[in-house]
Amino acid sequence: MKNKTLLMIPGPTPVPENVLLEMAKSPMPHRSPEFSAVFDEVNEDLKWIFQTRNDVFVFASSGTGAMEAALSNLVNPGDKVLSLVIGNFGERWAKIAESHGAIAERLAVPYGEVINSVDLQKRLEEDVNKEIKIVTMTHSETSTGAVNDVKALCEIIKKHGALSVVDGVTSVGAMDIKPDEWGINVLVSGSQKGFMIPPGLAFLTADDKAFEVHKQCKYPGFYFNWSSYKKSLAQHTTPYTPAVNLIIALHLALKMLKSEGLENILNRHRTNAMLLRNSLRKLGLKLFVEDDSKASFAVTSVYPPEGMAVGDIRKILKNDYDIIVANGQNDLKDKIFRIGTLGFVSERDVLTVVSALESAIEKAGGRLK
Amino acid sequence: MKNKTLLMIPGPTPVPENVLLEMAKSPMPHRSPEFSAVFDEVNEDLKWIFQTRNDVFVFASSGTGAMEAALSNLVNPGDKVLSLVIGNFGERWAKIAESHGAIAERLAVPYGEVINSVDLQKRLEEDVNKEIKIVTMTHSETSTGAVNDVKALCEIIKKHGALSVVDGVTSVGAMDIKPDEWGINVLVSGSQKGFMIPPGLAFLTADDKAFEVHKQCKYPGFYFNWSSYKKSLAQHTTPYTPAVNLIIALHLALKMLKSEGLENILNRHRTNAMLLRNSLRKLGLKLFVEDDSKASFAVTSVYPPEGMAVGDIRKILKNDYDIIVANGQNDLKDKIFRIGTLGFVSERDVLTVVSALESAIEKAGGRLK
Repeated sequence: MKNKTLLMIPGPTPVPENVLLEMAKSPMPHRSPEFSAVFDEVNEDLKWIFQTRNDVFVFASSGTGAMEAALSNLVNPGDKVLSLVIGNFGERWAKIAESHGAIAERLAVPYGEVINSVDLQKRLEEDVNKEIKIVTMTHSETSTGAVNDVKALCEIIKKHGALSVVDGVTSVGAMDIKPDEWGINVLVSGSQKGFMIPPGLAFLTADDKAFEVHKQCKYPGFYFNWSSYKKSLAQHTTPYTPAVNLIIALHLALKMLKSEGLENILNRHRTNAMLLRNSLRKLGLKLFVEDDSKASFAVTSVYPPEGMAVGDIRKILKNDYDIIVANGQNDLKDKIFRIGTLGFVSERDVLTVVSALESAIEKAGGRLK
Repeated sequence: MKNKTLLMIPGPTPVPENVLLEMAKSPMPHRSPEFSAVFDEVNEDLKWIFQTRNDVFVFASSGTGAMEAALSNLVNPGDKVLSLVIGNFGERWAKIAESHGAIAERLAVPYGEVINSVDLQKRLEEDVNKEIKIVTMTHSETSTGAVNDVKALCEIIKKHGALSVVDGVTSVGAMDIKPDEWGINVLVSGSQKGFMIPPGLAFLTADDKAFEVHKQCKYPGFYFNWSSYKKSLAQHTTPYTPAVNLIIALHLALKMLKSEGLENILNRHRTNAMLLRNSLRKLGLKLFVEDDSKASFAVTSVYPPEGMAVGDIRKILKNDYDIIVANGQNDLKDKIFRIGTLGFVSERDVLTVVSALESAIEKAGGRLK
């Protein structure tokens, strides 16, 4: 049987049927009052889900494009960037900074752990000459399932004076993150995550302090230049051809999210993730991030039972139950597997994946508990 | 009556119904053998439509993203770029070069005209110290409907030794353009044009000579870095999350194009554009680019009849006949209107727009001939 796949990965996440059909309408001409009316509502609703009063720019790109857009608009060659690294996506910030000529210093912890705010405070206190211009971090680290205490970290960064640049790709719309209240200067996210639409759009919000630094950027590039998006947004449009059909899909998905309500959405993600975590524990499985207070509600990393291969579990889940879970990335490949509970995922989906996982492990000859 | 819109603009262009429905399938996980199999076919078919043996990279971005990707991978601050400007999109190349710290010199002609190869030859001969590193140009200039003689211009550039960087956004898949044969070093295009899918994907192909220059680029950035795409392509995937649903749509659209055949596709665009041009002339309308040999087959710019406003014509076409044609851009706004014959456009569509235009002008009280 085909076409009955259940996506339990941290992206792309499941897309509601009505959103898929909305996306399948013939493209709307983007320089039209009809498109501008839709786009205005999208922008209002993005501010709501981003919990910010500032503009949220929409790029036709993947989430990494928005990460690039965050740093390419701020960094001059020779600038110093401190990257807080708890996984692959934390490391990506450092690489992007370097690709624009910045000197990236890593404050790293073993994968699965999170940044201790005391360590950050110590490092920034040592920076007496205020050489560090930007501190980058990941909120929910998709490669491990660990979650940084963004609020505490940004408070420390604010005191130092550097800009905080935060990857909220798998956290916005899934876990509480408040840029205005917490003093996050730049926050980015991507469409195929909590936004319940396919990949191809990315989002960025920057506050006034970040815009001041942006003005000093010598080579900001063109396609991701914040100033162009800000100017066009005031004219109810985008500077370059938008990914129209994805924006039409986003328009409907945001309406659905709004009618669910932000508190309910965040509760749903917390409840589903905790149900998954506790069910996995009951099955006798070991979680990669054991401490619930450091765990993402978007993605949960799990060790396979002893003596069992990640590949076998994933294969049975896929072939027998049409359920896709993710492998680990890079060094964690075949060491852990990752189950997404992000976006359009219900409690039923969590029960389903737990049940199928139990059967898959039994079929693979594994012993639980 | 709603939902019966006929898009006769140079992008987004009409999308076949089966392609829209293909795009509406649930997102496929992109790190899977199933996606890689589709992606491999897409890459083969892109080489076919681009008439190149080199890789064609697929970006999640609009066409401007691919233009950025062309220059951000080549330019170092202080480099000299010669931009051949025949319209807004020719000017865009110069702005992108400047946003990366290059010094952009414009060789410009009045909008509606094209670059004379003698002028380019003269300018490049003056450059005895070979300071000009890159020459940018537009093939089919979407803002005017004029078309540069890319073959002749690239031959001159090749002799000089600079790199040629060509915008084929509204020409690839609509007008003959042969990067390998003509010595085009970098060629870009976008999905909502000849490719018959919605906006959100952009394409770039670069030859070995361009790659050699790329290796000397100090700050190539991250998201559009050619080397990452080249490496991932060899592994049957993309470096960052691809816009999966658009690629699935592209996969089907390319199969349809292939079954039509390249010669037939190019003939269809030529025939439709010439039918439109001659019909407009018969109606007594004046074309912005009068010389057929300098006219794009993707988009035709037309003056309104004397004493009649572009806005009125566009309004009647839209309200009474559900046909969308484009206004002029910037200085040409309300001076000309533009009719697209690009992508999934048939001879019937051309007859329809001509007939509706005749009626619209009569309704607006205009006198023809």
